[in-house]
Amino acid sequence: MHYEPPEWGTLSHIEQARQALPQQVIAPPLRQLDGVGLMCESLQVTGAYKIRAICHLMNLHAKGLGEKGLALASSGNFAVALAWAGRHYGVPVTAVMMRRSHPWKVERVKAWGGQVVFSGDSTEERTAALHDLKEQGIHIVDHLTDPQVLVGHATLGLDLAPARPRQVIIPASTGGLLVATSLALKQIDPLIRIVGVQPKGANALVDSLRNGELCRLETVVTECDALTANRPGDLPWQLAPQWVDDMVEVSEDDVRDTVRYLVEEAKLVVEPGGAAGLAAYRSGQIPHQENTWVVLSGGNMAPERLAQWLL
Amino acid sequence: MHYEPPEWGTLSHIEQARQALPQQVIAPPLRQLDGVGLMCESLQVTGAYKIRAICHLMNLHAKGLGEKGLALASSGNFAVALAWAGRHYGVPVTAVMMRRSHPWKVERVKAWGGQVVFSGDSTEERTAALHDLKEQGIHIVDHLTDPQVLVGHATLGLDLAPARPRQVIIPASTGGLLVATSLALKQIDPLIRIVGVQPKGANALVDSLRNGELCRLETVVTECDALTANRPGDLPWQLAPQWVDDMVEVSEDDVRDTVRYLVEEAKLVVEPGGAAGLAAYRSGQIPHQENTWVVLSGGNMAPERLAQWLL
Repeated sequence: MHYEPPEWGTLSHIEQARQALPQQVIAPPLRQLDGVGLMCESLQVTGAYKIRAICHLMNLHAKGLGEKGLALASSGNFAVALAWAGRHYGVPVTAVMMRRSHPWKVERVKAWGGQVVFSGDSTEERTAALHDLKEQGIHIVDHLTDPQVLVGHATLGLDLAPARPRQVIIPASTGGLLVATSLALKQIDPLIRIVGVQPKGANALVDSLRNGELCRLETVVTECDALTANRPGDLPWQLAPQWVDDMVEVSEDDVRDTVRYLVEEAKLVVEPGGAAGLAAYRSGQIPHQENTWVVLSGGNMAPERLAQWLL
Repeated sequence: MHYEPPEWGTLSHIEQARQALPQQVIAPPLRQLDGVGLMCESLQVTGAYKIRAICHLMNLHAKGLGEKGLALASSGNFAVALAWAGRHYGVPVTAVMMRRSHPWKVERVKAWGGQVVFSGDSTEERTAALHDLKEQGIHIVDHLTDPQVLVGHATLGLDLAPARPRQVIIPASTGGLLVATSLALKQIDPLIRIVGVQPKGANALVDSLRNGELCRLETVVTECDALTANRPGDLPWQLAPQWVDDMVEVSEDDVRDTVRYLVEEAKLVVEPGGAAGLAAYRSGQIPHQENTWVVLSGGNMAPERLAQWLL
């Protein structure tokens, strides 16, 4: 089986992007727990994988950005990463967040000096608000369509490759991390099985793949505040049929149980969306293949909210 | 400055002990947060550093142990590690725990197949209960006096050495981990500054060093359930004057604040005793020297208890 990457997404492009990331972007700890590997991207700087793509974009654009800087739309973790990178690179940044974005994440963006603009909750409203910023002279990144965002995400696959995974389980919202990780790993070894996971109440990519057309959800209902896309990204949607082997849906109860399990057994704080992949694996929906790795994609959960989940 | 180790504690003994540990005993993640290094021993197998000494003792004794197996006294983490190692090496194990030992830790020992015997809370009562087991033909380890326990602890210093620390901050109860880590590190570089930390309400080693004689506390009052020794160990007490550069006391409020800080900023679950070193550093009592590392020595905290601390 051979996987032909898009011209912007060859292994050498991804490797170059990885090498150019600041040293603060770590290769996260890889741990074993109860027979499954945990890629602890929750321990990444800013607490989620998003910093990879942001820093890659900064490396590409920082010198050409004017004083208006860079903007993107995010439910939370992308915005937090943007704020960190804005400070690191000395670039003004603006995040389009949702009215329902978790206040802890909004405050974190502001604390690191990022501007915040609020939009409605749908992907369309967020994109519209982002394009409004473009008219003000701000350089905008549309993560649904920009291949360089996927190149940034794909660097995560390179950091997992030394563990020689046979199966990798990845949470999905618009599907960017999912297809990007596959892009890196299947170019290294096409036999690595890639499984995406979405919450039952936010399953736009699952639904789209099932129906063979890009579906928009009317409502999104999930505690996984990092996985609330009401539609797949354009590029993920194009790439998923070839690059993703299976998709699984996970229940809110299984996510909740897994967040607690990770605190008790792994001593890790993982946010609901970040734990969705492991929750699906623990629910028995994914074959227990040797050398299975789960991406714990983020850990940004307000302490008070975590407390409620642990009681 | 030259440090002469005791004959059982040379660097080559410690290195041999490290090499013989099972692969499950990891070199824990080393991370930077707000300008200080975190040695995440809380992510160690069984959630604390104690597994090092237990596995070292098993390597030394396992073949000679009869069907009665091995016993030791522990407030919790040592017992949890003992139970894990008992299963790993196929050796029956018994833990003398305190009536006030945290139930979560007691249950964990039982869950991994360890026997539990309860004793009174003082170090003397625990030692007496341990010696009762000896009369039943069980091989006992007295961690207050056994140099091989310190050799096991000292392997942690070897895992930190590649970070080239200039100052290392370590929580102390009987003081075993503190002097043992110093034993390893000062043989590698005598200029590394070693600072021990105790809770104000469980400061037996601080008190002893201050008074120049081994002090016993009448009462121990701290939420740091891993740091409840009412007296220093005999060997730590002998070694501390030479091998420890400074001792600091930390308040319960500072510990509580730091447990929360580690959840929010580092996405790590660290138990109160495990966070005591960082709490002291954050309180400003320890000079902010470049390349300072703090040992987060354990993460075993019941989820319900953590929840109470986060609300």
